Amino acid sequence: MQRRPGPMLTEGTALRHLDEEEILARVLPFYGRPPSLVVPPGDDAAVLRTSDRTIATTDTVVLGRDWLDAWSSGADIGHKVIAQNLADIAAMGGRPTGVLLTLVVDPEVAIEWVLDLTRGIAEACSEADVAVLGGDLSSAPPGVVMASVTALGDLVAEPVLRSGARPGDHVAVAGSLGLSDAGLRLLQQGRPEADQEAVQVHRRPRPPLEQGVAAVEAGATAMLDVSDGLLRDGGRIARASGVILDLDPTALDEDVDRLTPALGVEVARACVLAGGEEHSLLATFPPGCLPPGWRLIGVVRGVAAGEGPDILVGGLREALTGWDHFRL
Amino acid sequence: MQRRPGPMLTEGTALRHLDEEEILARVLPFYGRPPSLVVPPGDDAAVLRTSDRTIATTDTVVLGRDWLDAWSSGADIGHKVIAQNLADIAAMGGRPTGVLLTLVVDPEVAIEWVLDLTRGIAEACSEADVAVLGGDLSSAPPGVVMASVTALGDLVAEPVLRSGARPGDHVAVAGSLGLSDAGLRLLQQGRPEADQEAVQVHRRPRPPLEQGVAAVEAGATAMLDVSDGLLRDGGRIARASGVILDLDPTALDEDVDRLTPALGVEVARACVLAGGEEHSLLATFPPGCLPPGWRLIGVVRGVAAGEGPDILVGGLREALTGWDHFRL
Repeated sequence: MQRRPGPMLTEGTALRHLDEEEILARVLPFYGRPPSLVVPPGDDAAVLRTSDRTIATTDTVVLGRDWLDAWSSGADIGHKVIAQNLADIAAMGGRPTGVLLTLVVDPEVAIEWVLDLTRGIAEACSEADVAVLGGDLSSAPPGVVMASVTALGDLVAEPVLRSGARPGDHVAVAGSLGLSDAGLRLLQQGRPEADQEAVQVHRRPRPPLEQGVAAVEAGATAMLDVSDGLLRDGGRIARASGVILDLDPTALDEDVDRLTPALGVEVARACVLAGGEEHSLLATFPPGCLPPGWRLIGVVRGVAAGEGPDILVGGLREALTGWDHFRL
Repeated sequence: MQRRPGPMLTEGTALRHLDEEEILARVLPFYGRPPSLVVPPGDDAAVLRTSDRTIATTDTVVLGRDWLDAWSSGADIGHKVIAQNLADIAAMGGRPTGVLLTLVVDPEVAIEWVLDLTRGIAEACSEADVAVLGGDLSSAPPGVVMASVTALGDLVAEPVLRSGARPGDHVAVAGSLGLSDAGLRLLQQGRPEADQEAVQVHRRPRPPLEQGVAAVEAGATAMLDVSDGLLRDGGRIARASGVILDLDPTALDEDVDRLTPALGVEVARACVLAGGEEHSLLATFPPGCLPPGWRLIGVVRGVAAGEGPDILVGGLREALTGWDHFRL
């Protein structure tokens, strides 16, 4: 498999040879100017047409923690950081409208890598019909490269929080489970060819963004995106709502089977239950309300005496936990 | 002068001993919940009540580039990064409404420093009646600490761009000039006691935020905040508008005189003309339209044959240039 040209591997012109305005002049043409953009980037701030309630979130990727040079190109990182931010907007039941980007990089990084990153960001935004509202570029100590994105979105109805799941609701997922983690493991094991789709999802997650609005319109009672693993994120809905989410293991068989050829059944199961960075949507709905594109994977029940809010699989507690960004 | 406890100097509990949720549980209580905050931080995203045109901007500070440990406390950095972002909202003629924060830190940094930073951010936001909409925390390589802020704002009228200055307009400033640069120089020279107000402005810039809306209501034709120096930022208005800004040197005498006792007249003049990070507002107005709080410092004239757009002082070109964040 071809080695991907990461920021520390790319040959070309180091940023330190360019000034800020020269860099911006090369970056800005990548971005479109959708009609929602009242004032484009380049002034003190941009102006975006919005609804009267704006959703806002922010998420960052750091070289060496969130990606490795040899595994992800600049364009991959651009796609990934946009996807994970837009997934958070969708998870509120909103429609993503705009992003801002902060890039903090070692001045030895080549402009070519920055332009590749920019291409990925521009593609991901264009696909989601999202405006790039601006950004900031700062130099960083040697070896440091990070991209931080803030995403904005419009609400089309009431926001869907994590706290609204009620006993009797159905638990459902839109999108895949475990592919990103499987792809990461295959990259770590040096055999990405064993499941190229999983590797591709790890590099460029594909959150089902339109399902956020579909879920709110169908009456979803709670929702989030699976960023830290099904169990860990499902546990967040459970705790916020004061309920128990009981997943049906047979409903997850197809997800486990999907990954078993490349990784064996045990690891496949761990990917499905605890794999992070998938950015699929997990939600609860009143019975009979699942919209197309959602799969039933469990039920919500109340907390009995002596229990706490929890997520269970087939009525049992799983020892697997998800990803913690800080304790790595 | 007391050494300020920066992130690498603070004793206490290193972040690596805490997980993300424990850290958030200690940080979030600092932030208020203004009525504009429809959904507070803690879910996938926050929701803010906005006007139908939202202003957005982002700006980052990095340890070692934008501040030094020994010179700025966590609270100072919190005040500064909020001030410089809100100044960009004001410079569009807008009213700041919300911010998002990304903190990327070496896990050896003490939680006590992070809480001090949080205190500064919370104070600065509370003073400006701005909601904290959320944030992200990532671990960074050893020695790396950075804080990136995205600020949102409401428009009260049409946005004021850099490109609207017309021949005959007056050039005016709201707020101080050169104090931040003077404070930085005194810190570098180890004699901050020579002008403690300047040092304080360097640590905690005080943009005249309410003057952004005042300017748009008074008919300002172009505006920005002085982040890279009066000449460099004024040159941006000149180029964007295709005009010449001719500053009156005598109008700047009071600014130079203010700094001369601590730094001598030549350095004082350099601070006033080229000092960055002041975050005062620079704008152009039709004659007779200056609102209270603004000082006349020059005039706008058209570009004659053989000239380009430019900023002059008493009709002459100055060799001084401003701050470039990347070429340092």
